Amino acid sequence: MIQLKESVRNLIPYRVNDIPYRIKLDANEGKNYLLTEQINLEKDFQPNIYPDSDAKELRRKMAEYYECLLDNVIVGNGSSELINLVINAYCEKGEKVLSFTPSFSMYEIYCNLCSAKYVTVPCNSDFTQNIDNLILKANEINPKIVIICTPNNPTGYVTDKKDIIKMLDKMTKSIVIVDEAYIDFGGESSVDLIKKYDNLIVMRTLSKAFGLAALRVGCLIANEKLINMLWKVKVPYNVNSVSQYIAVKAFSKIGLVKQYVKETAERREKLSQELKALGFTIYPSGSNFLFVYSKIDNLFENLAAKGILIRKFSKNLNKYYRITVGTKEENQLLINTLKELIR
Amino acid sequence: MIQLKESVRNLIPYRVNDIPYRIKLDANEGKNYLLTEQINLEKDFQPNIYPDSDAKELRRKMAEYYECLLDNVIVGNGSSELINLVINAYCEKGEKVLSFTPSFSMYEIYCNLCSAKYVTVPCNSDFTQNIDNLILKANEINPKIVIICTPNNPTGYVTDKKDIIKMLDKMTKSIVIVDEAYIDFGGESSVDLIKKYDNLIVMRTLSKAFGLAALRVGCLIANEKLINMLWKVKVPYNVNSVSQYIAVKAFSKIGLVKQYVKETAERREKLSQELKALGFTIYPSGSNFLFVYSKIDNLFENLAAKGILIRKFSKNLNKYYRITVGTKEENQLLINTLKELIR
Repeated sequence: MIQLKESVRNLIPYRVNDIPYRIKLDANEGKNYLLTEQINLEKDFQPNIYPDSDAKELRRKMAEYYECLLDNVIVGNGSSELINLVINAYCEKGEKVLSFTPSFSMYEIYCNLCSAKYVTVPCNSDFTQNIDNLILKANEINPKIVIICTPNNPTGYVTDKKDIIKMLDKMTKSIVIVDEAYIDFGGESSVDLIKKYDNLIVMRTLSKAFGLAALRVGCLIANEKLINMLWKVKVPYNVNSVSQYIAVKAFSKIGLVKQYVKETAERREKLSQELKALGFTIYPSGSNFLFVYSKIDNLFENLAAKGILIRKFSKNLNKYYRITVGTKEENQLLINTLKELIR
Repeated sequence: MIQLKESVRNLIPYRVNDIPYRIKLDANEGKNYLLTEQINLEKDFQPNIYPDSDAKELRRKMAEYYECLLDNVIVGNGSSELINLVINAYCEKGEKVLSFTPSFSMYEIYCNLCSAKYVTVPCNSDFTQNIDNLILKANEINPKIVIICTPNNPTGYVTDKKDIIKMLDKMTKSIVIVDEAYIDFGGESSVDLIKKYDNLIVMRTLSKAFGLAALRVGCLIANEKLINMLWKVKVPYNVNSVSQYIAVKAFSKIGLVKQYVKETAERREKLSQELKALGFTIYPSGSNFLFVYSKIDNLFENLAAKGILIRKFSKNLNKYYRITVGTKEENQLLINTLKELIR
């Protein structure tokens, strides 16, 4: 067999293990509350014509919601595509990408895909982050890219905007990605900083607060100068017409998004209290999930056996879990099931 | 500004210049004939849940139509994503990808994106291809990947299957990609050869004969051993749920596809005769487009001014054009307009 290139040879294939479930609290997908309409495949758009490669109408809607200009936005097949794109665009083989650990697991995969080197600084033992540690490490290793995920997946930690500004002031030789996949739920966006910092890229997505993970729509927001460079590496027709069409519709319902985000935060606090009462350690979260520690043996397997999926982690985070905040009924079922397990 | 990596620094951004048109014969998109139904965004699938990352139901349908096994298929966000994926997966910086020229322009871009080196062998002066020239060049430069597009975009040339087999017998140290984007229209597929050759990858798409370019759905087909390696580099959730859902529906209407392909070939031959009568040089095409040469000055601009888009090429193919075979009415309008131009 002909071998893959070195940096990807030992990757583990991402294959989904379908576990039948009653409630799905493992991927922070929330609920569908924006889309109830029919679409007509023939009348609403032309199935045979390539999508608008520049996604102009969608970018216009995004620019309005994210409070930037049309020319600050590039749309992707999920923000994942764009994180991959940026790392690949800047990193020659062996160049470094720096982030905290734990954080979003795909950052490392995207580094492997383009032979970049992923370097991490550990969070504090309570999963808060000391930005000075990241800055120190950056001074030491000169990373091409630094990535901050806020609120952080999977810990829920919200980076203070002052810390983002401190990073940007110190790391002028790195591209700084602020991954705001969950920021609609809590924390202050850094989008306005793109005017001042031409090395800042903010990532946003419709997969979380908008409840539209099925569509694969995300975007990156940056200074026009940086955006003009990134158009060189964006592949044509990356977002299909149906997702563009539906996403545009979603942006006309921002009132519903704000309501949903508010309710989710309320349910998060209630769920947090109830889990605490059952002996869980709960870490503060600015997102639509809780990062928890539980002494219960085989918690993941026991819940899965009852049809409830939560997220478990590999060995170094043994007994830590990430639980999506569900609907009122889903959260109640989770708590009732946990009570049975503990009894 | 922080610089992009070297291999992409001088790329020209792909921005679409929207020209208003009456008929669009520039991108081989054909017509929408498969999809007329409504879909209900709430009932037909769950907008908030991530897509099936493995696209199992769609792969099952594809395996049936393409006459292979489920485990021979990986689905992509267009076959473009998969061509990009394969080049990136195999090529270390500077490794070579070999193809004929002219061929699909994106091959070179994908090489640039991962710092691979794109090397080409010219077609013959009549745009046929001498496979021995490609084999000779491969012996000389040891490419990691060889790409054959058949029917070739933009020339329409169909590679004889004996030539594909000859290549595969000689090029055992290269991955051989056979890009069959247009093969539903003419020529014999190489899919059955994957059983014998574990370095062969066949690309297929729904953007041409199925008339579904808006969805961005394509696939690659290869030996299970090769597929198992490629799963390491496939990114999760690359094809959104709506496109998967609609594509599955499309595969239940294969009778219509066969009818459409037959009619398109008939219209192609008629259009070919009519263009010849107007003094065009026509190259034999096994596809849904014609590659032509015309002495008419500023043909592209003159047709565009009348609302008819065709494909023109850069300097070295000056006065050559690619014209999509349209509907009966579209072809008639093209011919009438040409007659006016010539008069």
